[in-house]
Amino acid sequence: MTDFRGRHFLSTLDYTSAELRELVDRTVALKATGGAGKPLDGRVLAMLFFNPSVRTRVSCESGMARLGGHAIAINPGKDTWNFECGEGVVMDGNTQEHVRELGPVLSELCHAVGIRKSELITTGSAQAQPTGSYEELARDEFMHRFAQFSSVPVVNLESNAFHPTQGLADMTTIVERIPEPRGKKYVLTWAWHPKSLPVATPHSQLLSACDLGMDCTVVRPPGYALAPDVMAAARERAEALGGSLVETEDEAEAYEGAHVVCAKAWGSLDYYGRFDQEARDKQALRDWMVTGAKMDRTDDAFFLHCLPVRRNVVVADEVLDSDRSAVIQEAGNRLWTAAAVLAAVMGA
Amino acid sequence: MTDFRGRHFLSTLDYTSAELRELVDRTVALKATGGAGKPLDGRVLAMLFFNPSVRTRVSCESGMARLGGHAIAINPGKDTWNFECGEGVVMDGNTQEHVRELGPVLSELCHAVGIRKSELITTGSAQAQPTGSYEELARDEFMHRFAQFSSVPVVNLESNAFHPTQGLADMTTIVERIPEPRGKKYVLTWAWHPKSLPVATPHSQLLSACDLGMDCTVVRPPGYALAPDVMAAARERAEALGGSLVETEDEAEAYEGAHVVCAKAWGSLDYYGRFDQEARDKQALRDWMVTGAKMDRTDDAFFLHCLPVRRNVVVADEVLDSDRSAVIQEAGNRLWTAAAVLAAVMGA
Amino acid sequence: MTDFRGRHFLSTLDYTSAELRELVDRTVALKATGGAGKPLDGRVLAMLFFNPSVRTRVSCESGMARLGGHAIAINPGKDTWNFECGEGVVMDGNTQEHVRELGPVLSELCHAVGIRKSELITTGSAQAQPTGSYEELARDEFMHRFAQFSSVPVVNLESNAFHPTQGLADMTTIVERIPEPRGKKYVLTWAWHPKSLPVATPHSQLLSACDLGMDCTVVRPPGYALAPDVMAAARERAEALGGSLVETEDEAEAYEGAHVVCAKAWGSLDYYGRFDQEARDKQALRDWMVTGAKMDRTDDAFFLHCLPVRRNVVVADEVLDSDRSAVIQEAGNRLWTAAAVLAAVMGA
Repeated sequence: MTDFRGRHFLSTLDYTSAELRELVDRTVALKATGGAGKPLDGRVLAMLFFNPSVRTRVSCESGMARLGGHAIAINPGKDTWNFECGEGVVMDGNTQEHVRELGPVLSELCHAVGIRKSELITTGSAQAQPTGSYEELARDEFMHRFAQFSSVPVVNLESNAFHPTQGLADMTTIVERIPEPRGKKYVLTWAWHPKSLPVATPHSQLLSACDLGMDCTVVRPPGYALAPDVMAAARERAEALGGSLVETEDEAEAYEGAHVVCAKAWGSLDYYGRFDQEARDKQALRDWMVTGAKMDRTDDAFFLHCLPVRRNVVVADEVLDSDRSAVIQEAGNRLWTAAAVLAAVMGA
Repeated sequence: MTDFRGRHFLSTLDYTSAELRELVDRTVALKATGGAGKPLDGRVLAMLFFNPSVRTRVSCESGMARLGGHAIAINPGKDTWNFECGEGVVMDGNTQEHVRELGPVLSELCHAVGIRKSELITTGSAQAQPTGSYEELARDEFMHRFAQFSSVPVVNLESNAFHPTQGLADMTTIVERIPEPRGKKYVLTWAWHPKSLPVATPHSQLLSACDLGMDCTVVRPPGYALAPDVMAAARERAEALGGSLVETEDEAEAYEGAHVVCAKAWGSLDYYGRFDQEARDKQALRDWMVTGAKMDRTDDAFFLHCLPVRRNVVVADEVLDSDRSAVIQEAGNRLWTAAAVLAAVMGA
Repeated sequence: MTDFRGRHFLSTLDYTSAELRELVDRTVALKATGGAGKPLDGRVLAMLFFNPSVRTRVSCESGMARLGGHAIAINPGKDTWNFECGEGVVMDGNTQEHVRELGPVLSELCHAVGIRKSELITTGSAQAQPTGSYEELARDEFMHRFAQFSSVPVVNLESNAFHPTQGLADMTTIVERIPEPRGKKYVLTWAWHPKSLPVATPHSQLLSACDLGMDCTVVRPPGYALAPDVMAAARERAEALGGSLVETEDEAEAYEGAHVVCAKAWGSLDYYGRFDQEARDKQALRDWMVTGAKMDRTDDAFFLHCLPVRRNVVVADEVLDSDRSAVIQEAGNRLWTAAAVLAAVMGA
């Protein structure tokens, strides 16, 4: 068994494919026993939610409870202070607490810290108002600075660039359904959505299939490429395990012979910050929805989506309500993935 | 012992009077032992609070903790997504997650789900803005749809139509004070209040006395009848146990010889949605307050109120601060009622 | 061992210096064992946070979890009702629940209650809008009224007048670094800050050093005296143990030979409620910041601050990032102080 104690879990790219596969095995084992033995007895996780959450919060909090520990959900800016992470800043403005204190202090009070901080997650129909370019935001400065000053492990609960616990849950679901995924075809398809959503989740989802060595296809309209550095890393990982990664704009070709279809809406990096313009220009793409007819082209593929999903926008009822859908299993795996990662990095 | 495992607890009307009496017995037993033995060890409850709460949240969360489990409080719309429950909807608007996913997903992550969702609960002096008629809202569509798709038990923590854990707490309090309630007189009295409050709580409170076979009286001004279907069901249950249910507008007659006086303010169903009009028209009813003089007409009755209560509006200090008041005992029973119901439906 | 069971912890002034020292010893003992033995198994703490919190909430919630108990964080006015504490009030306005009910009810549902309620705590750069004079607010009416009606212990998590768990954490940190503090020099220095902050924390911090019998100095500009009654009590306590308390406006004199320097910004009681005026008038005081040069005058003093701290406003990076800083140790002691106080008053 690998010793993961004390390691941050900020991106699956910080772990080898083999390490991730071991975390999947641990997830499956925990799921089978229901967390018996209370390996996290007396351990405390602090979770900083800068954005709304259902699955992530409940999976972490329920996972900690099942393993005997306790999770504390904190909503920064609502029931806490505003945080600063710049160096040498004269803090006479709106920020009140520096990560140079916050990180070490939460390390004293808790055994691990989870952070969700994404500038592009909003509730309802509101569009996000990002404060910088994608390249700037994808550095996830607060999270990395916090991790730098934290003496306990930090788990990324979704940042601008990655959503690694979702990636691991997808990986687990694929392995549960296809015990030997090498040589199988995985398709990540873009979907239309009224808002411009983050690329963090599709990044981590695509990586999960590449880390299994699958033959991966990303299908999306022109202008909707994922971040080049993530695509390059994903391709390298897939190829190292005998798999592949290609991109296409042709849906028919993509679905053909697929074993897994994962749908996700994301905003164009070309339009980043010009979301009203993007909303107008992408109206012609509304038929980028997963339908029964498209799924019929596959090799009996099952359907993944991270949830929440807008029905009949991203995917048709006929798919979600059919046996092809694995989304509930996938969401249920969030619980055991969170439990496995938290137990691993806390050394339990 | 009845096996309640896996049953929803959405209304006491879904349970027989005998089953409710058994839940009261379990409540009393749990209260006596303080939850020893941790029967809910490792179990997790998710609570969706669409409205503010003190007693309900603390009683459920404290009850789970005392029995060894854990409760997660979620505030939908504030720190989560907006939920949809319509069939076949194209979700390109303000809602982000369908109950067809939310119910099964929380069922994967937790062992039970509690839901508070009432359109007429507001904080401070703000009047509610209901989105439909009473008949529409009383269908409690979200809660019933959620329960339909949930594979774990769902507990109603107050809906538009019912507040069954409050009803059970009242029932427990009555039994603690009057071990054989049949033949005793129970009075539910309307009280004036600056706002138009929901009928959910008086519905469940009245049902609790009817399910004990008491001789029940509802006293209220003209135009303040409770919902006809609930009244009919309540009368049927009372009569089946040898009790009765009558309505009157005569306070003197109602208090005469009473053994229990339960006060509650509620809005007129005739005025539903026209609350400013109601507020003006009901100014003449301000003397509908429980006073010491009125209580003197009773047969040494004790006083119930679900709390929070507006002092010297709904009930005079002289009653609340006297030995006649059972409101603290009643609120304390919320803890053990919640614990008993949660343990029962989780099969512990 | 003193029996603290059932006692409120509203101010360290309600405890003798010897009792506080015993609580410090218990803090150190709990810290050494990590809370082994779960002395608060099955116990529940309700926390009412009228203001934001990081350290206080996480330390209490983590402390309860480590000792086997559970803490419930409630945000009044956001996810609960508005509370009333006046006597004989006709509650037909904005308040919905009286402390005469709230106190006894939470006493039924929980084993202890923590309350943070300060009118001068705000998030970001917003100035507070106090509803009365300092003398009125310092009576902390809600908290004392709640405690009066509560049958379980009430712990002050910061009020207008005091922040006693912070005081105890400072006391613990001093004792850990200076096992025999008598005869050593403690300096509480005022610091400039864009806002007018409460005096609660400096009150409790100063008292902590006086209760150790140290030679204490408060250094602050003209017009920035702490509350006279607190100063008098602090002086009396220091002198009873052979220590002293002096005030000065001379920073050079104050730092000279100090063993502990504690910095805190607070608003002038003379300007109370006229914060915009104060903000303009105190611009000349911006050099009241703790710097390396000032610390060089001390007898190798260590640096305390309650956090959160505005860097390069209250204290320079060169101090916070040096070995002289004890702020992380101090914040870490919040956890064990909270655990010790909660265990003591719950009789565990």
